[in-house]
Amino acid sequence: MSGPAREHPREGTAAAGTRSRGRPGYDQATVLRRAIELFNRQGYDGTSMGDLARELGVSKSAIYHHVPSKEHLLEQALDEALRELSAVVDAAVGSEPGTAGIASGRSAHHRLRTVIHRSVEVLVAHLPAVTLLLRVRGNSPLELAALQRRREIDLRLAGLVRAAIDEGALRDDLAPELVSRLLFGMVNSVVEWFRPEGPVSGPALADAITTMVFEGLDAER
Amino acid sequence: MSGPAREHPREGTAAAGTRSRGRPGYDQATVLRRAIELFNRQGYDGTSMGDLARELGVSKSAIYHHVPSKEHLLEQALDEALRELSAVVDAAVGSEPGTAGIASGRSAHHRLRTVIHRSVEVLVAHLPAVTLLLRVRGNSPLELAALQRRREIDLRLAGLVRAAIDEGALRDDLAPELVSRLLFGMVNSVVEWFRPEGPVSGPALADAITTMVFEGLDAER
Repeated sequence: MSGPAREHPREGTAAAGTRSRGRPGYDQATVLRRAIELFNRQGYDGTSMGDLARELGVSKSAIYHHVPSKEHLLEQALDEALRELSAVVDAAVGSEPGTAGIASGRSAHHRLRTVIHRSVEVLVAHLPAVTLLLRVRGNSPLELAALQRRREIDLRLAGLVRAAIDEGALRDDLAPELVSRLLFGMVNSVVEWFRPEGPVSGPALADAITTMVFEGLDAER
Repeated sequence: MSGPAREHPREGTAAAGTRSRGRPGYDQATVLRRAIELFNRQGYDGTSMGDLARELGVSKSAIYHHVPSKEHLLEQALDEALRELSAVVDAAVGSEPGTAGIASGRSAHHRLRTVIHRSVEVLVAHLPAVTLLLRVRGNSPLELAALQRRREIDLRLAGLVRAAIDEGALRDDLAPELVSRLLFGMVNSVVEWFRPEGPVSGPALADAITTMVFEGLDAER
């Protein structure tokens, strides 16, 4: 099954016609979205403000009217992805380290399944921002801070895996940190191929991943 | 458990002392290895021949004595990774499409487990080259050719998953292409964190991945 042909709407075009200066009028959300797409296509470090100006169809001298800085856009994108992923983990393990938070009363196994399912949903709903986050290598203080926030999320996820092992719900012959890395390695790998217009829906993908990792692929058990 | 401190041997140094021109003498394997490390650290597109000269400790004008071109190094690196990964798939499904090759007589399930196990071993043994391969985005004909070879490998792997489902060894409620993508998404994600000096060995990692994906994480089955 193939998806529909991809369209590249240029939201600024209509607004441009109504401006006397001929400068396309972009709202900030659109500028951010187009910038993230461009960063993912040609790399953040490989994208100049001139490239972004061309992408938006504004002159190189007008780009700063729309964008304070390239880094500002990166910060907004990384914050979007981290905020959404943190919310998923907060709901499962509480917003403070060591607390069960709003998720208390549920088994760690249930909460881990939920966290994986919701992580896939976040990844699909915020695909460009999460893709950018996962490609960050720590080339600036901003990128290092994002990596640090990712590490904190990873630690809390590993803690949840350990709790599910400790309560006897998960096999105990695999190290929790390793299980956590591999689990979310699989989840994160989805950004490499998932397309909203493709044959697999977000919920079906989330179901497939949770089934595969908890129940396994083998038919006879 | 922490690994030993990382060393950065500079193989060229000793040889340099024996050269009258004072030009460090690198063998081609060392040049390639150092180039791959640099590409992985700062991105292939973000690495200039000047950067590589600095990395090797030779002058910018002498770098072409060692390296015909940046793309030549990329080609060698991608070929190393693709050759090794192809060999694993060839051993499991035969070198020609539609043939069982040397692996005939074994169940598809056994061959799939073997392919996953050996893929992890290749990834660990050729970590820098495979890392570079997995980051290729198709920015040149060379990169597009590498992506095409990756796609051919993926198709043959999906065929092996389908064969394992058809023989009744794997659950049949997940699409083979999706299972294959997720399986090797997990395998490939290892390049993001695995370090040879770290606490997890290559064989232990390969065992953990095959156990996790075939048997699942749930304790009670």
